[in-house]
Amino acid sequence: MDNPSPEFSDQFRAEFDQLLSWRRDVRTFKTDPLNQEIFECLLRETLTNSPSVGNSQPWRFVRISTPQTRQLIRNHVEFENKRSAQIYEGKTAEHYNRLKLHGLHTAPEQLAVFSAMNPNEGKGLGRQTMPQTPVWSTIMAIHTLWLKARALGIGLGWVSILQPQEMTAILDCPEDWQFIAYLCMGYPKEESQTPELVRENWQERLPMEKLILQK
Amino acid sequence: MDNPSPEFSDQFRAEFDQLLSWRRDVRTFKTDPLNQEIFECLLRETLTNSPSVGNSQPWRFVRISTPQTRQLIRNHVEFENKRSAQIYEGKTAEHYNRLKLHGLHTAPEQLAVFSAMNPNEGKGLGRQTMPQTPVWSTIMAIHTLWLKARALGIGLGWVSILQPQEMTAILDCPEDWQFIAYLCMGYPKEESQTPELVRENWQERLPMEKLILQK
Repeated sequence: MDNPSPEFSDQFRAEFDQLLSWRRDVRTFKTDPLNQEIFECLLRETLTNSPSVGNSQPWRFVRISTPQTRQLIRNHVEFENKRSAQIYEGKTAEHYNRLKLHGLHTAPEQLAVFSAMNPNEGKGLGRQTMPQTPVWSTIMAIHTLWLKARALGIGLGWVSILQPQEMTAILDCPEDWQFIAYLCMGYPKEESQTPELVRENWQERLPMEKLILQK
Repeated sequence: MDNPSPEFSDQFRAEFDQLLSWRRDVRTFKTDPLNQEIFECLLRETLTNSPSVGNSQPWRFVRISTPQTRQLIRNHVEFENKRSAQIYEGKTAEHYNRLKLHGLHTAPEQLAVFSAMNPNEGKGLGRQTMPQTPVWSTIMAIHTLWLKARALGIGLGWVSILQPQEMTAILDCPEDWQFIAYLCMGYPKEESQTPELVRENWQERLPMEKLILQK
């Protein structure tokens, strides 16, 4: 039997808004290790309570602990970041090169996230017309992890400056898994309510009339 | 200046876990309208506090109020659902046809969600190697909306049994927006902690050892 359906209080909603507004992409970590019991519980609970198309649970989280593997990934990200920098010119190029885009050197926990492309689970429900929906379920699991981690004072930084096929090869994962994200986690060195790219004058918030339309 | 960084309490974390475990894909809605002020505030706050690659804010939410447009979309979903049902045979086909997969007939609020494919905002940061990252940012905005809505007692159902190009045409949206989801929102008729597809014996939860690996 289900428990009675909860009603959330104004106080909870205000605190949840705080959680959303203090979740940040963290790129500067303390080297202190995370409590393993808490971290493993965080992963398990995330993957129990995230939504997925047809309840297909396509997320596959790979914990990367081996120093050699971490080094390979750092090298790859640095290579790809130099390539990415080449589209910028002049002051924008200087600006880009000053941005700190990852915390790979210090984050005590690192996770590669993959998505099963065509899982048996869910029997294809809800994804015949939109085959990307398993990937999108995996994205929501990452977002759940991000929020739950922040509620525990743990920061998460999402690294996307890398080649998916290269990550699948480095980590020797099945070909029918799509690489989604590399996540750095640990205690943040500093915290802010303002996104780093706003603080760094890279990109401001957009006005709502561009984002919400009526038909 | 930022406010001081918040510490979240055990009580908040327990309530947040409750929120995650009571967020459901809702397919049976009461017809009562939502309070417009609360609903509009919910949308604005969602789009202010969701993460996005390079802070590109690629999400475009379209509120669908016109009865004719809603009817066109219902017809399209029903057509596509009949097509989707054709991959199942025998008892699975009967089972599929018994599932209630959307609340389009009663949901008082309906939103089409699109993602700008190549927004100027963010100046391409973080998405040269992974061009899907703007779409994934939009997915996290939907997830934020889902959770914030549930905290207000409002249910959300995600409809994916439709053709993206057809939705772009019906809604006359720009070609460089990718259609992502059609969302039904309203007060749920019943609430449950157990996913509908688990209750209906369509798909059980997977064991953690399939989902968390170590390298």
